[in-house]
Amino acid sequence: MKKIATAAQIIAEKPFYLEQAEELHIAKTAYHNGLPILLKGPTGCGKTRFMQRLAWELTRPLITVSCHDDLSTSDLIGRFLIKGGEAVWMDGPLTKAVRTGAICYLDEIVEARKDTTVVIHPLADDRRELPIEKLGETLTAPPEFMLAISYNPGYQSVLKDLKQSTRQRFVSFEFNYPPPELEARIVREESGIEQPLAEKLVQMATMTRSLKDSGLQEGASTRLLIHAGKLIRSGIQPRTACKATITETLTDDHEMLAALEEITSSLF
Amino acid sequence: MKKIATAAQIIAEKPFYLEQAEELHIAKTAYHNGLPILLKGPTGCGKTRFMQRLAWELTRPLITVSCHDDLSTSDLIGRFLIKGGEAVWMDGPLTKAVRTGAICYLDEIVEARKDTTVVIHPLADDRRELPIEKLGETLTAPPEFMLAISYNPGYQSVLKDLKQSTRQRFVSFEFNYPPPELEARIVREESGIEQPLAEKLVQMATMTRSLKDSGLQEGASTRLLIHAGKLIRSGIQPRTACKATITETLTDDHEMLAALEEITSSLF
Amino acid sequence: MKKIATAAQIIAEKPFYLEQAEELHIAKTAYHNGLPILLKGPTGCGKTRFMQRLAWELTRPLITVSCHDDLSTSDLIGRFLIKGGEAVWMDGPLTKAVRTGAICYLDEIVEARKDTTVVIHPLADDRRELPIEKLGETLTAPPEFMLAISYNPGYQSVLKDLKQSTRQRFVSFEFNYPPPELEARIVREESGIEQPLAEKLVQMATMTRSLKDSGLQEGASTRLLIHAGKLIRSGIQPRTACKATITETLTDDHEMLAALEEITSSLF
Amino acid sequence: MKKIATAAQIIAEKPFYLEQAEELHIAKTAYHNGLPILLKGPTGCGKTRFMQRLAWELTRPLITVSCHDDLSTSDLIGRFLIKGGEAVWMDGPLTKAVRTGAICYLDEIVEARKDTTVVIHPLADDRRELPIEKLGETLTAPPEFMLAISYNPGYQSVLKDLKQSTRQRFVSFEFNYPPPELEARIVREESGIEQPLAEKLVQMATMTRSLKDSGLQEGASTRLLIHAGKLIRSGIQPRTACKATITETLTDDHEMLAALEEITSSLF
Amino acid sequence: MKKIATAAQIIAEKPFYLEQAEELHIAKTAYHNGLPILLKGPTGCGKTRFMQRLAWELTRPLITVSCHDDLSTSDLIGRFLIKGGEAVWMDGPLTKAVRTGAICYLDEIVEARKDTTVVIHPLADDRRELPIEKLGETLTAPPEFMLAISYNPGYQSVLKDLKQSTRQRFVSFEFNYPPPELEARIVREESGIEQPLAEKLVQMATMTRSLKDSGLQEGASTRLLIHAGKLIRSGIQPRTACKATITETLTDDHEMLAALEEITSSLF
Amino acid sequence: MKKIATAAQIIAEKPFYLEQAEELHIAKTAYHNGLPILLKGPTGCGKTRFMQRLAWELTRPLITVSCHDDLSTSDLIGRFLIKGGEAVWMDGPLTKAVRTGAICYLDEIVEARKDTTVVIHPLADDRRELPIEKLGETLTAPPEFMLAISYNPGYQSVLKDLKQSTRQRFVSFEFNYPPPELEARIVREESGIEQPLAEKLVQMATMTRSLKDSGLQEGASTRLLIHAGKLIRSGIQPRTACKATITETLTDDHEMLAALEEITSSLF
Repeated sequence: MKKIATAAQIIAEKPFYLEQAEELHIAKTAYHNGLPILLKGPTGCGKTRFMQRLAWELTRPLITVSCHDDLSTSDLIGRFLIKGGEAVWMDGPLTKAVRTGAICYLDEIVEARKDTTVVIHPLADDRRELPIEKLGETLTAPPEFMLAISYNPGYQSVLKDLKQSTRQRFVSFEFNYPPPELEARIVREESGIEQPLAEKLVQMATMTRSLKDSGLQEGASTRLLIHAGKLIRSGIQPRTACKATITETLTDDHEMLAALEEITSSLF
Repeated sequence: MKKIATAAQIIAEKPFYLEQAEELHIAKTAYHNGLPILLKGPTGCGKTRFMQRLAWELTRPLITVSCHDDLSTSDLIGRFLIKGGEAVWMDGPLTKAVRTGAICYLDEIVEARKDTTVVIHPLADDRRELPIEKLGETLTAPPEFMLAISYNPGYQSVLKDLKQSTRQRFVSFEFNYPPPELEARIVREESGIEQPLAEKLVQMATMTRSLKDSGLQEGASTRLLIHAGKLIRSGIQPRTACKATITETLTDDHEMLAALEEITSSLF
Repeated sequence: MKKIATAAQIIAEKPFYLEQAEELHIAKTAYHNGLPILLKGPTGCGKTRFMQRLAWELTRPLITVSCHDDLSTSDLIGRFLIKGGEAVWMDGPLTKAVRTGAICYLDEIVEARKDTTVVIHPLADDRRELPIEKLGETLTAPPEFMLAISYNPGYQSVLKDLKQSTRQRFVSFEFNYPPPELEARIVREESGIEQPLAEKLVQMATMTRSLKDSGLQEGASTRLLIHAGKLIRSGIQPRTACKATITETLTDDHEMLAALEEITSSLF
Repeated sequence: MKKIATAAQIIAEKPFYLEQAEELHIAKTAYHNGLPILLKGPTGCGKTRFMQRLAWELTRPLITVSCHDDLSTSDLIGRFLIKGGEAVWMDGPLTKAVRTGAICYLDEIVEARKDTTVVIHPLADDRRELPIEKLGETLTAPPEFMLAISYNPGYQSVLKDLKQSTRQRFVSFEFNYPPPELEARIVREESGIEQPLAEKLVQMATMTRSLKDSGLQEGASTRLLIHAGKLIRSGIQPRTACKATITETLTDDHEMLAALEEITSSLF
Repeated sequence: MKKIATAAQIIAEKPFYLEQAEELHIAKTAYHNGLPILLKGPTGCGKTRFMQRLAWELTRPLITVSCHDDLSTSDLIGRFLIKGGEAVWMDGPLTKAVRTGAICYLDEIVEARKDTTVVIHPLADDRRELPIEKLGETLTAPPEFMLAISYNPGYQSVLKDLKQSTRQRFVSFEFNYPPPELEARIVREESGIEQPLAEKLVQMATMTRSLKDSGLQEGASTRLLIHAGKLIRSGIQPRTACKATITETLTDDHEMLAALEEITSSLF
Repeated sequence: MKKIATAAQIIAEKPFYLEQAEELHIAKTAYHNGLPILLKGPTGCGKTRFMQRLAWELTRPLITVSCHDDLSTSDLIGRFLIKGGEAVWMDGPLTKAVRTGAICYLDEIVEARKDTTVVIHPLADDRRELPIEKLGETLTAPPEFMLAISYNPGYQSVLKDLKQSTRQRFVSFEFNYPPPELEARIVREESGIEQPLAEKLVQMATMTRSLKDSGLQEGASTRLLIHAGKLIRSGIQPRTACKATITETLTDDHEMLAALEEITSSLF
């Protein structure tokens, strides 16, 4: 998968993505109706990959912004920079996406400052407008533009909640870990290991996920299985590889570490 | 509905709006008496559309500002920018509205910083003045200028309360979801689906709204029904469309998701 | 009442103000003794109007500053602005008032940042000085200068309290709603309605004020009665006008709204 | 008392001050031993006047800084300002006092930011040095320089405490209201009223001070008695004058207001 | 060990490091698979030394960033500086590492501001990209680049937790104090003392580590033993050296100090 | 004791300091082994004087920085200043100390912002490096450089704690008040009073220190005894001098003030 070195990523090769329900179809229908989309789900279960595939199918550039506590409206929309004594305006990623008709994907939107979620309101309803206060200008998004946001309901807290006035503008999708056969296939394809080993890794992941109610914050993501597969394919023993990529990565709690070690021993 | 690409939106075509009480008449009377207005109500029930219609009827430009935690007085009134080594003043949206005799609509005012609510005080009483401290200037609003603010009483908290000294300057309107027949008509008009389907969607919305006391944060807004309608008209199955536009959008709680799925199944 | 478009408002026409006790006389005596004044009282009961009348009687310009959470010392005293590569000093409203011998009225002083209340200390005792740290200069106020501040004791909290070291520099006045006959006369004069209707509106206000201990945050101010009067004079039905200007403005609580509706029905 | 219009106030006329103990003598001895002083006591009991008298007796300029929440080290020491494209250093009041051998009086020091209290440490011990980090320079104070700070122990809280590492550098003085005869003499001198009236005002003050344990935050200061005296001398009735200058100034509590009104009635 | 005076440290001499498990082998395998690594463990147990050895073995420059509360994205990625009136971009250490294919080690990552942990997300998954918003550029890391982060689980709190969405991108290693024989050898090599003394110091460390559950915040690190060894080799008595380097360094609690003194007496 | 007027203080005359244990010897050994030192102890017990003496014995310049809440990394390391339109770098005191091989003493380090304590980590372990992120440069400290920090364990709180990862880099010393004979000698030398009076003052100090558990925040420091001695030598009565320099300085509590007065009366 090659990428041009700009914030607007053109997906040249078809990204590997296995559809679970009709999510690609519905998202494309939303796109053609000018509706924005919201992806919900745990970390590492394929939301980013889904966006890459969607962008590829719609042949639109994909601009991804990882949101965080200090992400401000200016970081999204743009700001003036001093160049040669002049204040020169520089578009932010959201403005660039609106101007060029790209897909703008705001990853983990609830992590951003509140102003960020409000600034997308006029863009996320039938106005499809982006007011740029500092330029005294309002952009109307072309039909090619799409807004997508994601968040992890597992992290949802009173402070980091997505307001109803924001939510009720989006077509929403719940993402989850893929079913075992599918997940094994993904692990095999991405790490280059054999099918039986991939299946064992998925078995292990399923067991860690069932520990979520017993004190483990989150189960192993598909990504971690791919990491384990890669180390094993490079000659690291399966148990050692699982310890470094899964067990020690998931927790620091000594009892939980022991429980995960036992799971590994029972499988490899 | 076409718009000129400036922050001051001229409403060229009559916006579709169905009056429920005399709200348009009273708001116009307030306008002619130089009184500001306050719109109260849940998200997606038509406050923004009401403002567009009012602006159209009064043939005034509409300047909308979505308020948020970091919106400061300078964002509303204006600031100095450095251009060619000179500090050049740039009017903010509120100042622009006062100078040009537009309608300035501050959406979700309680989300803004406290200074923002205080700065509108002299503009919201019989002085109708906007002091611009940084220019050492005080603008007197022309009769054409109108100030409108909105907030959602459902979100009201101790921290995000509208002070009595602010409230007691406004003529106030409570907005709510339209009555079923009216709402079905709106959904039909805006999404292009048939009347019976529109009625079923309204039935569904009514059922979700009745769940508000049972743990659902807020019921489905009219906007979500329009989204569902659009997806259905594009060929998505009603149940699938309702899941993506309504169920998954309203909540992340698994029990509540199941309850909403059941409602959908009983209708479609 | 005409005003020149500068922050320093010259009151050209005698503002309508009905004295309740000797407040105008005492305030003028304080002025001639070089003492600052403090106005206490609920919102919309005439403090701003009192200041306008006092300024008119003393033939001094009136500079009003609405205080808020982010009002800093620099906002009051002044700051350097970059102009043509030079830092050019610009007087703030308080400095301007001291230099020109105007009346400076700091409305809702407790809302401002603490530094603001301390910076007026040397100006509010027998030194009558304003130190401008950034210019390395100390201004001595001319006898024509007067300092006035206001606050609403109803909002008083531990965080937003006026310190004794600040209070004990002022001659203080408690403001309240005017007695019924007086208030009816004000409503009649300002809105242009007939005496009986004005009396009914005052009756209504009195009833809302008695609800303060029953959960209403604050009763209707004289200002709201004037709003109601204006809408009625423009042809809106009294009940409808009272709902929009008084009931919906005072509260969002549904039980309280019903109680206020009943009061309206009993009167109109 | 005339003053030159700079932050460094030269006291030209002998300020009226009645010594209660040996405080002037001890303070002058501290000065000649290069020791800094700390004034403790309630508002309006003469700390500022004491400093003016001390400065007059030592024939040193007096530079007073009212401390507050946002007073930073730069406000005291100095900062760079842009002038003609150059960063030009500008001494703050403390640096100016050290350079010119003046008395620097930091009023209500505990109100300032913590860095402010730490920055005076090397100046307040036997080093008598002021490091100016931004200039990379350390000033050694000349013998003529004196540091004085004040605070009100009544306001002392965990957050606004004077650290022992700060306190244990100062020679300290407790200030309080003057004894009745002395206070009456001060009120008479400063307001121009007759002796019997001055005595009655002091009687009233003493009664308010005894209410401190019954819920009054602080009793009437000498300053308020002078205010009352001035209004009375200008023709205002004593009861009315006491209400405006003392009763309404001291409290907003209605029971306490009634108690104070009764005290006034019993005296005038 | 010589170093060039730039932030990118070239490790010229083989750093002394004793491998405990296969950690160097696994880390090198992770490197060759383009996977980032996470080091977990208490202070002073060799994490920094491990990174130096790894960098030496991979012959890559090592760029270390000590994270703290105020470390922002700009500190890592870069910022514009004004030079000759122009805004000149200056790479931060992370950008420099990506451009030059170095190892970037973010020490105590959880101490940094949240944005810092999010900004490394696209760099820590299979995208291996660093978006530089301010340049509107996205760098793709060359295969030589490696990302490493560390944190101390003992300090882990709700506020300073490493989010699962961050953790689940890394191959993880738990570090701990080396086994006694190994630790004695390290102390001997680094401080130049004899084997028996080194063993006694390790005995002492082990005893302090067992006090962790009895109120001691953390046991003595290997580093402190080396300090003690160095002072002893320079002629300081062992008891005195242990008091200064271990006892007084570990705690301020007088009972705990006494307990540690007793341990010292029992050994030397 | 003369000093050059730069932040780097050259101690020309041997500072008066009486060694209590081997602290000077151990500190010099730490210096020759390139180890940093940590001074712990109450205010005014000689930590600053110890540093001056150490600097004198090592013939190194001493750069002292008083830490506070707002002390940032830039204050220590340096910053860019605009001069003639150019950004000119200016070393902070820590950088200056590293470059010139001076002793840098960070007084009350825990008062500083967290970033300050982290920035000294690479300087306080065997790397002895100071990374200057903004210059993209890393300084290696010459052998002549020494880092010293101090803090007062009595003030230690959860928020103002010295992290183990910081502590475990230093050789530590606990400071306390000198034994009576030594303290009397210091008081005599520094204030110029006779031996019997000095002994009485030490007696008084000892009594105040024993009150620490009875509600006094801290006992009288040696410095306060010197202050008392100086006032007495200038002719102030001992009781009066003790009241101003010790009693009123130590506390504001009236019961405690009475207790301290009684102690004074029993001695003088």
